Amino acid sequence: MNSNEIKNKNDKFEELNSKEIEEVVEKLIKKELKVYQLDKLIGEKNAVVVRRIYLEKLSNVKTEHIGQYTIDEKPAMQKNIENMIGAIQVPLGFAGPLIVNGEYAEGEFQIPLATTEGALVASINRGCSIISKCGGSTVRVIGDKMTRAPIIATKSVSDALKLKNWIEENFDKIKEVAESTTRHGKLIDVSPVIIVGKNVYPRFCFTTGDAMGMNMVTIATERVCNLLEEEMAKLGIKISTVALSGNVCVDKKPSAINLIEGRGKSIVAEVFLTEEMVNKYLKTTSKAIEYVNTNKNLIGSAIVNSLGFNAHFANIIGALFLATGQDAAHVVEGSMGITTAECQDDGLYFSVTLPDVPIATIGGGTRVETQQECLKILGCAGNGNSKKFAEIVASTVLAGELSLVGALAAGHLAKAHSELGR
Amino acid sequence: MNSNEIKNKNDKFEELNSKEIEEVVEKLIKKELKVYQLDKLIGEKNAVVVRRIYLEKLSNVKTEHIGQYTIDEKPAMQKNIENMIGAIQVPLGFAGPLIVNGEYAEGEFQIPLATTEGALVASINRGCSIISKCGGSTVRVIGDKMTRAPIIATKSVSDALKLKNWIEENFDKIKEVAESTTRHGKLIDVSPVIIVGKNVYPRFCFTTGDAMGMNMVTIATERVCNLLEEEMAKLGIKISTVALSGNVCVDKKPSAINLIEGRGKSIVAEVFLTEEMVNKYLKTTSKAIEYVNTNKNLIGSAIVNSLGFNAHFANIIGALFLATGQDAAHVVEGSMGITTAECQDDGLYFSVTLPDVPIATIGGGTRVETQQECLKILGCAGNGNSKKFAEIVASTVLAGELSLVGALAAGHLAKAHSELGR
Amino acid sequence: MNSNEIKNKNDKFEELNSKEIEEVVEKLIKKELKVYQLDKLIGEKNAVVVRRIYLEKLSNVKTEHIGQYTIDEKPAMQKNIENMIGAIQVPLGFAGPLIVNGEYAEGEFQIPLATTEGALVASINRGCSIISKCGGSTVRVIGDKMTRAPIIATKSVSDALKLKNWIEENFDKIKEVAESTTRHGKLIDVSPVIIVGKNVYPRFCFTTGDAMGMNMVTIATERVCNLLEEEMAKLGIKISTVALSGNVCVDKKPSAINLIEGRGKSIVAEVFLTEEMVNKYLKTTSKAIEYVNTNKNLIGSAIVNSLGFNAHFANIIGALFLATGQDAAHVVEGSMGITTAECQDDGLYFSVTLPDVPIATIGGGTRVETQQECLKILGCAGNGNSKKFAEIVASTVLAGELSLVGALAAGHLAKAHSELGR
Amino acid sequence: MNSNEIKNKNDKFEELNSKEIEEVVEKLIKKELKVYQLDKLIGEKNAVVVRRIYLEKLSNVKTEHIGQYTIDEKPAMQKNIENMIGAIQVPLGFAGPLIVNGEYAEGEFQIPLATTEGALVASINRGCSIISKCGGSTVRVIGDKMTRAPIIATKSVSDALKLKNWIEENFDKIKEVAESTTRHGKLIDVSPVIIVGKNVYPRFCFTTGDAMGMNMVTIATERVCNLLEEEMAKLGIKISTVALSGNVCVDKKPSAINLIEGRGKSIVAEVFLTEEMVNKYLKTTSKAIEYVNTNKNLIGSAIVNSLGFNAHFANIIGALFLATGQDAAHVVEGSMGITTAECQDDGLYFSVTLPDVPIATIGGGTRVETQQECLKILGCAGNGNSKKFAEIVASTVLAGELSLVGALAAGHLAKAHSELGR
Repeated sequence: MNSNEIKNKNDKFEELNSKEIEEVVEKLIKKELKVYQLDKLIGEKNAVVVRRIYLEKLSNVKTEHIGQYTIDEKPAMQKNIENMIGAIQVPLGFAGPLIVNGEYAEGEFQIPLATTEGALVASINRGCSIISKCGGSTVRVIGDKMTRAPIIATKSVSDALKLKNWIEENFDKIKEVAESTTRHGKLIDVSPVIIVGKNVYPRFCFTTGDAMGMNMVTIATERVCNLLEEEMAKLGIKISTVALSGNVCVDKKPSAINLIEGRGKSIVAEVFLTEEMVNKYLKTTSKAIEYVNTNKNLIGSAIVNSLGFNAHFANIIGALFLATGQDAAHVVEGSMGITTAECQDDGLYFSVTLPDVPIATIGGGTRVETQQECLKILGCAGNGNSKKFAEIVASTVLAGELSLVGALAAGHLAKAHSELGR
Repeated sequence: MNSNEIKNKNDKFEELNSKEIEEVVEKLIKKELKVYQLDKLIGEKNAVVVRRIYLEKLSNVKTEHIGQYTIDEKPAMQKNIENMIGAIQVPLGFAGPLIVNGEYAEGEFQIPLATTEGALVASINRGCSIISKCGGSTVRVIGDKMTRAPIIATKSVSDALKLKNWIEENFDKIKEVAESTTRHGKLIDVSPVIIVGKNVYPRFCFTTGDAMGMNMVTIATERVCNLLEEEMAKLGIKISTVALSGNVCVDKKPSAINLIEGRGKSIVAEVFLTEEMVNKYLKTTSKAIEYVNTNKNLIGSAIVNSLGFNAHFANIIGALFLATGQDAAHVVEGSMGITTAECQDDGLYFSVTLPDVPIATIGGGTRVETQQECLKILGCAGNGNSKKFAEIVASTVLAGELSLVGALAAGHLAKAHSELGR
Repeated sequence: MNSNEIKNKNDKFEELNSKEIEEVVEKLIKKELKVYQLDKLIGEKNAVVVRRIYLEKLSNVKTEHIGQYTIDEKPAMQKNIENMIGAIQVPLGFAGPLIVNGEYAEGEFQIPLATTEGALVASINRGCSIISKCGGSTVRVIGDKMTRAPIIATKSVSDALKLKNWIEENFDKIKEVAESTTRHGKLIDVSPVIIVGKNVYPRFCFTTGDAMGMNMVTIATERVCNLLEEEMAKLGIKISTVALSGNVCVDKKPSAINLIEGRGKSIVAEVFLTEEMVNKYLKTTSKAIEYVNTNKNLIGSAIVNSLGFNAHFANIIGALFLATGQDAAHVVEGSMGITTAECQDDGLYFSVTLPDVPIATIGGGTRVETQQECLKILGCAGNGNSKKFAEIVASTVLAGELSLVGALAAGHLAKAHSELGR
Repeated sequence: MNSNEIKNKNDKFEELNSKEIEEVVEKLIKKELKVYQLDKLIGEKNAVVVRRIYLEKLSNVKTEHIGQYTIDEKPAMQKNIENMIGAIQVPLGFAGPLIVNGEYAEGEFQIPLATTEGALVASINRGCSIISKCGGSTVRVIGDKMTRAPIIATKSVSDALKLKNWIEENFDKIKEVAESTTRHGKLIDVSPVIIVGKNVYPRFCFTTGDAMGMNMVTIATERVCNLLEEEMAKLGIKISTVALSGNVCVDKKPSAINLIEGRGKSIVAEVFLTEEMVNKYLKTTSKAIEYVNTNKNLIGSAIVNSLGFNAHFANIIGALFLATGQDAAHVVEGSMGITTAECQDDGLYFSVTLPDVPIATIGGGTRVETQQECLKILGCAGNGNSKKFAEIVASTVLAGELSLVGALAAGHLAKAHSELGR
């Protein structure tokens, strides 16, 4: 089979036979072809097979599983992956029912969770059960924005200040230009506009509908940067965009600014348990739970300067993100936040505050077949559902936290109480 | 089919027919059975099917994909998941070859990457290519430990200080007791021993071989806590373990202590590019890359108090962790660290420092079939390979960082230079 | 002398003779009088003497110096101190001239500095000299606000969100009420309005003229809290102010929010030095200074999660604050910020960014006689001068940083260069 | 009077008459003399006068107070100040008696406090009174060290790792060399040894007796750096000290590492109040105090990523540091730490944890006359007293915190309780 033949054959993208596959693999090994050229040359389906076999040859490993998948290669390779060789399978379980009392999510939900960490689903499930018995999670989306903050260099702090002032005085103009690049993105704020030396880091905040929105806001921000360069030039001031992201956004890195200002969805979920319920379902007391929460999640985290004043947000966020096609790197942001436990006269007030949960119900990984199905199980697939999904996410985190903190309090604190007389 | 029949049938774990399935689903709906009881009752394989259909009924959603998987349910349900209903498929691509010059990893590697973020694999692949052309990544594991830090309550700071002193003076005794619970775990340090008020948070540091080791160190720590209680009692001092984790560990939360002291594998990878290579492959200059790195990764992150002084560690860590069965929640820890770029007389020194990468080549998610295959492709499956794997991880992160920072420098800085005369 | 006699005598506040003093001291020792009662009873001047002698008795220490001072006791005891026994003397030096090119401060300044740390004044002085030779410091006030953030408790996150929304929708009403309590304070923003669980922490931001303004904004905030309670009550929502400061302000504690959002005056100062000047005055190169700054002030601070990306802001701020009557506890806030050094084609750009410098030219310690004189020397005493003073502060910090970073670069880096070929 | 005459006259250091003073001032103005030359030329006393008059001329301000002081110029100018022109007076009050139950400080203490912030002394005094009525503060020094962390550059991470390993394996040799430079400094640890890229930041930890010790440890560290260079050279590895401080120390900047690892004295003070005492003296309840502390000092500080989980450590530290001659810039470090309040069955446990309080009872500003007197009043002047002093410092901070948190709880929380039913 010569190059032409390959090409002809691939126009029709028929399945290659094993001899043909071997020939193409050989060309890869001889570096007559590059792996990324295969998609167009022999079609996505064949390309996956050829690359996998090529990899098996190079590594001298025979694979049986990664080549077994049902997702459609073509859209996956257009939107989600390059050099595709197959798929990873992550075990999927579920917890629930979880009663959610949100503004957008109302009722009982079954929560799909993808993880390889044993006991996690069981623990969340226990939390769901207790919360539901107590009437469900009350939950609100308290903020919603996606941000991008470029670095714009000027020649001196005096120019930097002029740029800052111009930005603050021309919000409407900036908004118009930003929104000309997108149907769903709306510029809601430019805040803060940080100056360090002669450089300016304006944090552009958008709502992005039900998409996670990073690409959308990056494109809009680029256009705004052009506007700023033009406008400042009119004033005789030369500025220059150094990078579209100046790490002030902050994307996929733990940061105080996101904890404080929020990013993605900012969400709070809470539940009240009577003392009787705490005793019965968690086998402990409100006071014990408050004590563990204060000394672990507040004081323990404080003394080591953690940004996560919680027990294990990341576990729950991780399992939900994997199941529903969110970006795994965004687990980083979702891990930040605070769990509170307040022993009241008649029971326990328990809450989770998640300031930074970047999620989507359209675009990105949400379109992959298995992930799409999980979103559907939640009633959250597609447009109009991201806030509903956010409320379910926070409620599930509440379940996971209550379960773990309760277990710690039950297991150990009884002893502490009797021994130390607390 | 009555209860007995179910039981009988399930003793042999034959595949249920669709009518039988419907009957069991009906029982779930009527709450005559609980979902977690199914595994034993009808066997894991049937249980997965029944639960999925049950969920489809509840949510009124028909699934086609999550039920399609090749992983073996039985071990998955023993070690990785509860209430299993199927599996998520995550698209898998690869980058490489990447030349790695480590102490443990030597040679060319093809890097499997699971992600749904388009362009990520391509970007990492570009970085791999450039690094390899420059002779490869030099990489070292500079630290290796897994940590657990319980909260131990005492009655007064004077007792807390006595406990701290006892711990520091009896390392050998503590080590002996800790190691009696584990074959692979070795206690290497108890540091720091933090006191807040009358509570003590000793951070027990272990090496855990090739397992990630959280469970191992938790069990060992529990045993040490018992020892401490006994020993202090002999001195007439009452202490009590409040929680086995006091958030000083710090597990799955961003924290300064892990950045400073390290956790999991601490790894540094570096590469030197001559100016010619920077020009040719990255279409920019060493000076431009240093400039972007300083103003974005160092100053930008500084002003918002980020713990991630890098461009996108989490993206690369996330894709590698998913592909190889690491805990998705540990992406949080892996996102911390520093990228440096140093313009030298004859080219560019570029490095990544990752102080906190908890990984394993045995146990946890690494045993799932698809993930195991990816580890095999890297030559890292099983015992004896975690440091080799760590070196590959850091080198891949180096590739991802070089690619992105280089692209930012190429795209924008030329302009800045000419305009602002830098 | 009986009680009546004391009183009579003190009505006229004549100086007590030594026998009378002894009698009063005796009463203090016998607990027939309390130290704080003395001011009214025998007049401020006598009270200082009596308390000091009382203290000498209790501690069996004879003092010669703390009783020697020229400040007027009466206003000091009304505004600055209780239980006064004298004064501390802090050595006062000066640095300068320093050429400042600000919006408010223009020309040459001599900088009074109070410190007990040898070599500090000399080092700052060297920096002033170099900066002035290079044309002076360019400096801008990029932000100006004093903040107070109470904790307001509600019954549920849904009420908390309603409160947040009300605050954001009724800025004008809040502003009116807030400003009714003060002549100089102007409410400029309520941002961010943070929710944790069911509690709300709105950060009220004011300009406060030339006063530091903490008291002013506390009073205004208290009035706003009352308004919020009333308004929410109208909506049937019960809220309650837990504390006027919820540590979100943040006053006198290091914090990311102040680094990011600014507090007090936010100030940037910069200077450009040609390469010749760097060689001649600092005995080093631009490249060496950039190298030290990057590896010490950026990377070194990053890896230990410091909020001070600088060499020694606190030293300079401390000496200036003591000399001019600022609050010593505010040195904490002034210690945060970033020093940048950028090696350009023709020389060195060097800057300091101070986001959080709470200062005043009226009120508080600025009215004490010696401190007032220092402000006068700077031409900054009294109303209308706080921004001018801010510009001088930042320029002095620039001098101190340039001097120290330059010295480090000169002392050590030459060697590094030759040895490592950088 | 010509130059010679000045010199002759100054050999004897007689007081200059006003005509002579004018002549010297004239020379300064004409730049025939420099201000720093005056000390040797006309003696310290005259130099102070001449510089002050020179400054008055330049600024056209007449001073009456800064020239009035009793401290001896000569030692001040040798050890504490350059270009001296006089002294600042800071009002001095006292609080007490405060009962302290430490290992080093036992009994009643009167606490001298220098401040210009009205109400601060009164507030601390109230705290002292309550604590004393409850039996006093229990306090322990839980750590004691002064640190220096240079930046040492190597050529590659592999060399960096070799250096790190050498340091960890040769503690005794390093200790010997370090201690050869000092009588009082003892190297107790080199930890952590941080690597970023190819640079190493070893944190050398010393005890420094009763001196604050920064200079001592800097000199010792310099000598160690030389040792390291020599030893690595023997192994064929070139290293180079970039700066003696790499900001990992961390001196005078807020930082997580100091919070976690401690620096200076690490101190904890605590007090227990029965419920009756809380009611009687603080007019509130244990529960209310715990509530305010949790929501303000823990949660409020958490959400804005503050390093100060306390109400106002810096106020008390500031006033004590000024009174006793500590370095004002070290208030920054002392501001970090945690206040805890725990409502127990029978009352309130209240504590302050201060991990980072750099103090001295000899050297630096402690020798200035007024400051020395304050140390004497505390019984803490001179050698052997720094831990005693540390215990008093922490106990005073405890007093200030209890007073303020109690006041907040009393003022507002009663209302909250009745309204919200907590």
